[in-house]
Amino acid sequence: MTLTQDQAVITNGINVTDLSNTIEAIRRSPQLATFQFRSKNSWLEGGHNRSKIQGFFGCGKEDETRDEAFIFDADEPPVLHGGDKGANPVEFVLHALAACMTTTMVYHAAARGIEIGAVNSELEGDIDLRGFLGLSDDVRKGYHDVRVRMRVQSDASPDQLAELAKFSPVYDIVSNSLPVQVQIETF
Amino acid sequence: MTLTQDQAVITNGINVTDLSNTIEAIRRSPQLATFQFRSKNSWLEGGHNRSKIQGFFGCGKEDETRDEAFIFDADEPPVLHGGDKGANPVEFVLHALAACMTTTMVYHAAARGIEIGAVNSELEGDIDLRGFLGLSDDVRKGYHDVRVRMRVQSDASPDQLAELAKFSPVYDIVSNSLPVQVQIETF
Repeated sequence: MTLTQDQAVITNGINVTDLSNTIEAIRRSPQLATFQFRSKNSWLEGGHNRSKIQGFFGCGKEDETRDEAFIFDADEPPVLHGGDKGANPVEFVLHALAACMTTTMVYHAAARGIEIGAVNSELEGDIDLRGFLGLSDDVRKGYHDVRVRMRVQSDASPDQLAELAKFSPVYDIVSNSLPVQVQIETF
Repeated sequence: MTLTQDQAVITNGINVTDLSNTIEAIRRSPQLATFQFRSKNSWLEGGHNRSKIQGFFGCGKEDETRDEAFIFDADEPPVLHGGDKGANPVEFVLHALAACMTTTMVYHAAARGIEIGAVNSELEGDIDLRGFLGLSDDVRKGYHDVRVRMRVQSDASPDQLAELAKFSPVYDIVSNSLPVQVQIETF
């Protein structure tokens, strides 16, 4: 439902007036669109490690609104010789993908005045661990297929909603190649 | 340090005897390497949504060892018009990447008898939001560059450790292209 709070238009829980102002500001000053996100991770033991996520740069300055870091533990399940103290890394990829496609669809719908009542998604990622284990050069190390099924309460067509969801940064990151620079130092 | 518990060799917190048995079993029966991971996500409001991760298929059967689901909230910070109730999706990608490269390096090192005392990493992802916002066709929607800096306590060389870390499934997923099937139905 589209509501008006004071003089702002709110669609899908998003302040579309503010969103439109942001888009207009970026159109005038493209450097405001430059963001840098960050994560720090420390190994704990075996398959268990922990990330802290807090600061980022965006809209021309360091963000200082987060009083505390977000903390996430990753681990492997027993069958993969871990202690299961967190979801495993490839499961986090599915979370990131679902979250991003959902948010992207909802934001882009709001900007176009398309109302959305609910979004539920189920994701599956297929992986052949012979790649990870180095048992076959013909098998890739990551997922070889990912499926995203979304059920959306909306009057918009599935095709239009899919088009909006595919503005997702994580959909781009997963479905296309991206340079990852790796630098390791030892002590 | 490599320890022996009962008759098992433990290196970097990983039971290398069990890991070697798993690798040998997969070598004999490659279908055991087929895994499927899953995530369900529900939109809550605006940029806020929640994933539940529990069951998966692997080693020839449905895993039933997790009594509870892992729950992760994603949101956007205020400057991106969210309520900051969770890290944002592209931040979760950095967590997944750090976690996976760390675990992969530690596991592969253990299998080779290379001891690791500590791993700390810092990741940065650069993104130009004009892609996400649809303001420029020339700007990609996701990160255009990702940097991973790892500090590792080990006698192994940085080059060898980087080689091990690059067996990471999430490194493969992020750095290479991957087909993502999207299916949307409305109600």
